[in-house]
Amino acid sequence: MQNNINVKPPYFAVIFTSVRNSGDEGYSKMADRMVELASKQPGFLGVESARDKIGITVSYWKDLDSIRKCKENSEHKLAQKLGREKWYKSFQVKICRVEKEYGS
Amino acid sequence: MQNNINVKPPYFAVIFTSVRNSGDEGYSKMADRMVELASKQPGFLGVESARDKIGITVSYWKDLDSIRKCKENSEHKLAQKLGREKWYKSFQVKICRVEKEYGS
Repeated sequence: MQNNINVKPPYFAVIFTSVRNSGDEGYSKMADRMVELASKQPGFLGVESARDKIGITVSYWKDLDSIRKCKENSEHKLAQKLGREKWYKSFQVKICRVEKEYGS
Repeated sequence: MQNNINVKPPYFAVIFTSVRNSGDEGYSKMADRMVELASKQPGFLGVESARDKIGITVSYWKDLDSIRKCKENSEHKLAQKLGREKWYKSFQVKICRVEKEYGS
């Protein structure tokens, strides 16, 4: 999915990149649940995701406070904990301020 | 590929998301060339890319000036022009300041 974020910059992005372990092990279900949860959080603007050798998920947020609150969500914490152990060989999270955008 | 950027924030990211038209039409060759060119630009820190339904490419840069210079590169401009017409149904570019990062 590609999102047109309906707000003008500045807004915020969380770039999550990961390398998966083999096997699903409940990953797809949890990933769907995480997106569903995030999308209900105040300040959530959208999410884009693609995976081949690595996975890149970019979620967009109104402000840093919305990102902090989402991160503190206990179910999300659980997913992070399980993810570290079971799903991901490695992962990286980058918190960004979107300053400018253009496109077709 | 997943990159560990060897600088501490703040640095900058260009999030490029796209929906492709069907067929390669020289796309792969040009995409490889663009990454090769970008990686030679001063201020280039790394790039991560994944594609399934959409494509997400995130390139990382030392500063905004490096991004501007890369964009002004004439061969890149050519790729953008051709891309608009031939390769992409749609694309979006977001220029971001990476403020914080963590990971495994």
